Amino acid sequence: MSYTFLSQHFEQRYHLQHLGAICGWDQSTMMPPGGSEARAEAMSTLAVLCHQQLQDPRLADWFAAAEQEPLAPQHTVSLAEMRRQWHDATLLPEELVRAMSLAGSRCEHAWRSLRPANDWAGYLPLFEEVLNLSRQAASARAEALGLSQYDSLLEQYEPGMRSERLDTLFGDIKSWLPGLITQVQDKQRDETLLQPKGPFAIEQQRALGLEVMALLGFDFDHGRLDVSVHPFCGGVSEDVRLTTRYNEQDVTQALMGIIHETGHARYEQGLPAHWRRLPVGQARSMGIHESQSLFFEMQLARHPAFIARLAPLLERHFGAQPAFSPDNMARLYTRVTPGLIRVDADEVTYPAHIMLRYEIERDLIEGKMEARDLPERWDQLMQSYLGLGTKGNYRDGCLQDIHWTDGSFGYFPSYTLGAIYAAQQAAAIQQLTPLEQLIENRLTSVFSWLQKNIWQQASLLDTDRLIEQACGQPLDATAFRQHLQTRYLG
Amino acid sequence: MSYTFLSQHFEQRYHLQHLGAICGWDQSTMMPPGGSEARAEAMSTLAVLCHQQLQDPRLADWFAAAEQEPLAPQHTVSLAEMRRQWHDATLLPEELVRAMSLAGSRCEHAWRSLRPANDWAGYLPLFEEVLNLSRQAASARAEALGLSQYDSLLEQYEPGMRSERLDTLFGDIKSWLPGLITQVQDKQRDETLLQPKGPFAIEQQRALGLEVMALLGFDFDHGRLDVSVHPFCGGVSEDVRLTTRYNEQDVTQALMGIIHETGHARYEQGLPAHWRRLPVGQARSMGIHESQSLFFEMQLARHPAFIARLAPLLERHFGAQPAFSPDNMARLYTRVTPGLIRVDADEVTYPAHIMLRYEIERDLIEGKMEARDLPERWDQLMQSYLGLGTKGNYRDGCLQDIHWTDGSFGYFPSYTLGAIYAAQQAAAIQQLTPLEQLIENRLTSVFSWLQKNIWQQASLLDTDRLIEQACGQPLDATAFRQHLQTRYLG
Ligand SMILES: [Zn+2]
Ligand SMILES: [Zn+2]
Repeated sequence: MSYTFLSQHFEQRYHLQHLGAICGWDQSTMMPPGGSEARAEAMSTLAVLCHQQLQDPRLADWFAAAEQEPLAPQHTVSLAEMRRQWHDATLLPEELVRAMSLAGSRCEHAWRSLRPANDWAGYLPLFEEVLNLSRQAASARAEALGLSQYDSLLEQYEPGMRSERLDTLFGDIKSWLPGLITQVQDKQRDETLLQPKGPFAIEQQRALGLEVMALLGFDFDHGRLDVSVHPFCGGVSEDVRLTTRYNEQDVTQALMGIIHETGHARYEQGLPAHWRRLPVGQARSMGIHESQSLFFEMQLARHPAFIARLAPLLERHFGAQPAFSPDNMARLYTRVTPGLIRVDADEVTYPAHIMLRYEIERDLIEGKMEARDLPERWDQLMQSYLGLGTKGNYRDGCLQDIHWTDGSFGYFPSYTLGAIYAAQQAAAIQQLTPLEQLIENRLTSVFSWLQKNIWQQASLLDTDRLIEQACGQPLDATAFRQHLQTRYLG
Repeated sequence: MSYTFLSQHFEQRYHLQHLGAICGWDQSTMMPPGGSEARAEAMSTLAVLCHQQLQDPRLADWFAAAEQEPLAPQHTVSLAEMRRQWHDATLLPEELVRAMSLAGSRCEHAWRSLRPANDWAGYLPLFEEVLNLSRQAASARAEALGLSQYDSLLEQYEPGMRSERLDTLFGDIKSWLPGLITQVQDKQRDETLLQPKGPFAIEQQRALGLEVMALLGFDFDHGRLDVSVHPFCGGVSEDVRLTTRYNEQDVTQALMGIIHETGHARYEQGLPAHWRRLPVGQARSMGIHESQSLFFEMQLARHPAFIARLAPLLERHFGAQPAFSPDNMARLYTRVTPGLIRVDADEVTYPAHIMLRYEIERDLIEGKMEARDLPERWDQLMQSYLGLGTKGNYRDGCLQDIHWTDGSFGYFPSYTLGAIYAAQQAAAIQQLTPLEQLIENRLTSVFSWLQKNIWQQASLLDTDRLIEQACGQPLDATAFRQHLQTRYLG
């Protein structure tokens, strides 16, 4: 009975989050500007309600009682996931949560104008407040969870992941990545690149995007494509709202963005129907989520065989031009250029951006570094990883990301974990049938593999067991390195 | 303090309803079909929550204490409106509410296929269940409110209105309407009508609609226009979501539909910013709401002076054609033809459809008539009011409306009350300046009058005092009759 009460309680939570997800999507895609104040009030009322819902005093009794009930193995796992969410949501004192939310929105709001103004001095005091509260949160979480301070934050996005393990993993990558980047740049130096000539009408870009989403198995009965300033994959798993942003002069970016978000979307759409209202039926972690978008974007869409399928679609929508040749498009989509901006980075240099942020945020949280030292450390790591300086250029340096403005420390590693998991999944598939062949003739087999091994597993296994069961071994960067070497040097 | 607690509680309610309104709009305009089940669950969770929110045991104490507090007059009114909503929401036992909701959705769902199938026999048992529960609700409400059974339902949509008063009002209209209809038909018999020739591209119809909305002062910073199967004005007053439905072969219908909904929208947008989160700051009644849409549609848009302004817009968007001449468009938009379908009815025959429904629903609720007698009574009243038979034609007779399927008895009178209030408002404005002149040169003065006299008043006055203060006298059909005579026989 107590297990049933808990399930109902968490299902109710799922329904409330549904309302927030749709209204959040609406806010970014449909809402007229004048609606924002009322919307913010409504969303904050909902947030309070969802928070209170997990503070319900009956929950402790239900959990205690449910753990004495005879449960089928899957329900035991489900119970554990509910407990994890509940425990996680009740670790921090109410005043700290409120203070963090306030400081976070203040800092994020200011950042929107301070970044373009390159105003580090204006940003610093706001950021110090956010960091200070995040450290308090990390301490409280660390004590309750028996983890180090940074790990207690990491745990929110990557349950079970520890910085010790990341240090080893990233240490390995650091040992070969800079050399690899240099080699790839040498190899690509004499390549000729043709930029496709625009303009590319928005309506045609959208039609192309929809066609590629269909090719990738997106279920339009349970989702749609719209436009927002910052592309995202939102909504709920039964109704996934994917967005993109079009540039009339550049067709390649929106197209690849749509493919990336389609990966996120198929994960959501592929979650087990029976379980998705409960924590155990939801996405395993941010890293696994990103592994799906990066599987679609990097393993599939930038594969020469896939680009060979994209090229005729481009021609059909925009007319033939030399730049649309499969070879040229493949070169464009695999061009490696160290740059300052993470979101513009290519597949090979991307991990450098992440390792830099990881080292900094870990030290910030553990008190080994202060907010004021951020620009110098950033510049120094940028120099060492990518040979680029950011002295005085805060805008394209430590002010470029939104994540830290609201205290989302511990999130960045998920991007590179995702890239690694995606490479492991592609390698596992490759062992059964060459990916090239599947892309050419049996794309649906790829999706079936993901469906069975990742999507349908939701949170029924922990991340290590999920990856081990799917790929034969837990987290390991070998396949990722292999993938980069084959694609960029092979 | 208790007044403050109450205000916060009702403001929270307003924010929750915001989420429901936006998700409701999304459901009709954006949601892919496969999202409907999850959405229904989320919406029903929200409905339960909003219901529970008014069952909060603290409310009774707060109301008792607040009534002892020294309050400014407007806060006293606000307190009374909160109490009215609270009282109204707590009149019925929980099981009855649940049973009504269940029977209502079952009947409404079945109606969607039974109506096209003309299946009265299939509908009857479902409808009997809805009627039976509605009678129980009416009895419970009647006892608690000290009203007759039908009046207790009417009170939900038209606070303060009583069937005794409707009997007098409709009795008056019945004494002159059939004669008027005959006279108008005689007068219009020899008129030549040109139907505009399509197709009219949807994109152009939308552009025209937006232009007319702008002309009517719709605030696009606080609202938008989209498409849905059943047009409505939804969203929240800070962000009004208006919808329409386009027909490539007919431009006149969507255009007038948009104008009608724009009237609803401007009322919402014009509610007092300071009060709109509380019951006292919201729309006064369904009849007053409809008076705004009908003011826009009937008093303004079908006025020859307004049609003279519409004609060149039609030409600009679709090219010139003889049918677009102002005279012809005016004839089209004022053509009177008795018909079976309420939603297709013209301004003159519309009240007959309402009076018929009023008499039937009143007798159904008061137990003076049974569900099985509905088709016969419908046919007989249709014959007597509009000279048309519906024997065996349930689809276009008693099965045509959605209202009774979910037990919304007491709503129908609002339509004709709205038409009457709109005519009174137009007459009041006309006493200051001829409407023709205002439409030609100073449309904004019309909106200022409505803003001051109706929109900004929200629920600060009861309906009678609102209309009396605005128009010099309470509800009275004289102006409505005058308006019809002038427009259709003058
Ligand atoms: Zn992503
Ligand atoms: Zn209306």
